[in-house]
Amino acid sequence: MAQRHLVSRIEASMPDPLDDIRARLRAFVAERDWAQFHDPKNLAMAVASEAGELVAEYRWIANAQADAWSLEPENKQRVAIEAADVGIALLLLCDRVGVDLVAAMSEKIALNARNYPVSLSKGRHSRPGS
Amino acid sequence: MAQRHLVSRIEASMPDPLDDIRARLRAFVAERDWAQFHDPKNLAMAVASEAGELVAEYRWIANAQADAWSLEPENKQRVAIEAADVGIALLLLCDRVGVDLVAAMSEKIALNARNYPVSLSKGRHSRPGS
Amino acid sequence: MAQRHLVSRIEASMPDPLDDIRARLRAFVAERDWAQFHDPKNLAMAVASEAGELVAEYRWIANAQADAWSLEPENKQRVAIEAADVGIALLLLCDRVGVDLVAAMSEKIALNARNYPVSLSKGRHSRPGS
Amino acid sequence: MAQRHLVSRIEASMPDPLDDIRARLRAFVAERDWAQFHDPKNLAMAVASEAGELVAEYRWIANAQADAWSLEPENKQRVAIEAADVGIALLLLCDRVGVDLVAAMSEKIALNARNYPVSLSKGRHSRPGS
Repeated sequence: MAQRHLVSRIEASMPDPLDDIRARLRAFVAERDWAQFHDPKNLAMAVASEAGELVAEYRWIANAQADAWSLEPENKQRVAIEAADVGIALLLLCDRVGVDLVAAMSEKIALNARNYPVSLSKGRHSRPGS
Repeated sequence: MAQRHLVSRIEASMPDPLDDIRARLRAFVAERDWAQFHDPKNLAMAVASEAGELVAEYRWIANAQADAWSLEPENKQRVAIEAADVGIALLLLCDRVGVDLVAAMSEKIALNARNYPVSLSKGRHSRPGS
Repeated sequence: MAQRHLVSRIEASMPDPLDDIRARLRAFVAERDWAQFHDPKNLAMAVASEAGELVAEYRWIANAQADAWSLEPENKQRVAIEAADVGIALLLLCDRVGVDLVAAMSEKIALNARNYPVSLSKGRHSRPGS
Repeated sequence: MAQRHLVSRIEASMPDPLDDIRARLRAFVAERDWAQFHDPKNLAMAVASEAGELVAEYRWIANAQADAWSLEPENKQRVAIEAADVGIALLLLCDRVGVDLVAAMSEKIALNARNYPVSLSKGRHSRPGS
C-alpha cells in the first residue's frame, strides 16, 4: 500500500513523452514570438501542408512495394521526418485550442469500434451501412 | 537510493499514453483483419485525407475568429475528432514502418531549432536564407 | 446562314485550351513511359501532394493580407506554379479515368446551386440544413 | 483572307469552356455574397480540403485495382464529383488572384519538360539530379 501510494505519486509527477514534446514546442514558439502566426486556422493549414509532403513520399511507390521501400534506411528517415512534421503541427494545433490529443484519440478509437463492428467489418474496409 | 531504484523500475514498466493507444490500434486492426489495407502508402493517404477534413473545419473561419471559434464546445469537439483522426492515421503509419513518432518529433524539433535560430527568426516565419 | 455554317465548322474544329493541355500531357507521359506510374490512385495522391504545396504558400499569411500578398509579382508567380501543379495532376487523373473535368465542374456547379439556394445562403457559408 | 479574318473574329469572341465555368462561378459567388469568404487563403484551404476528399476515394483501393475500380459507373461518378470540387476551388482561387490557370499549366508543362528530360526520365519517376 505504501508502494502503491508511491507509484501514484511518481506516476502523477512523471512527464509523459508528449508532455515533454509539448513543453519544448511551447518554448520554441515563445522564443521566436511565433504565437502570432500560430492561430488554429494557420496550424490546421500547417497540418495539411505537412500531410501533403508525407503523401508525396509514397506517391509513386506501388502498394506492393510500400513496406519494403519504407524499410530502406534512407526512406525510413524521410518518412520519419515527414511524420514528425505532421505530428508537430498537430500537437501545436491541439495545444493552441486546448484539445488533449491522446484523450481525443482514445475516444475516437472507441467510437470507431462502434462504427466498424468486427462482425460486419472483418476484412472489409467500407463503413457498414454506407 | 532504494527509492530511485524503484522509480526506475516503475518508469520502465509504465506504459506511456501513446503505447496504450498503439496497443489498442493494433488490436483494432487485428480483430478486423485490416493489416491487408494498412500498407504505408494507404496509411499516408489516410493521413492526407484526415488532414483535409481538419482543414475543412477552418476553411471559412477568419484568422481573427479562429481562436474564439475553437473555444465553442461544439466546434472544439469537431476539431478534437478531426485531430484524433489525423493522429490515429499517423500512429498507424509510424507503427507499420517502425518509426518512433515521439523520437522523430524530438529530433525534428532540434533540427528546426538549428534551421530557425532565434536571432534570425524572432517574429519572422520565413526560413532564414530562403 | 452560310456564315453560321462556317462558325459551326470552325467551332467544331477549334481545339479548346484544355484539349491542348491534355494533348501535351499525354505526349509528355508517353515519351517518358510514365503511364506505369500514373494509375488513378497515384494521381489522386499527386493532386493531394500538390494541394499541400499550394496551401503551404498561404499558411502564415493572414486572411486580411492574402489578397495584397497574392498581388506581389513574386508571390503571384509562386501561386501560379502551385495552382498549375494541382491542375496538371487533376487533368492527368481525369484523363486516366475518362472523366470530362469541364463537364463535371458544370454539373457540380448546378448541384451546388441547388444545395446552397440564394435565399438561404446569402452571406452564410454553412450548408443549409447541416 | 476574308475567311481568315472571320475566323479570328470568331475565335476572339468564342468563349472557351473554362470561361463559361468561370462566369458561372462568379455569378454563383456574387448572388450569395460569398466574396467575403473567398480570399485566396480560404480558397487554398478549400483546394486542400477537396483534394483530401479525392484522395479518400482511393485510400483503400490497391494500385493494381485502381483503374478497374474507377471504371465502375458509381465509382467514376464519385471521382468525377470530387475532381470537380477540386477544379472549382482551384478556378475560384485563380480567378481571385488573377492567375490564368491554362496559361500557368502550359508554362509548367514546358518547365517540367526541361526538369525531366526524356533521356534521363524514361521509366524513372524520380527527378534527375535529386
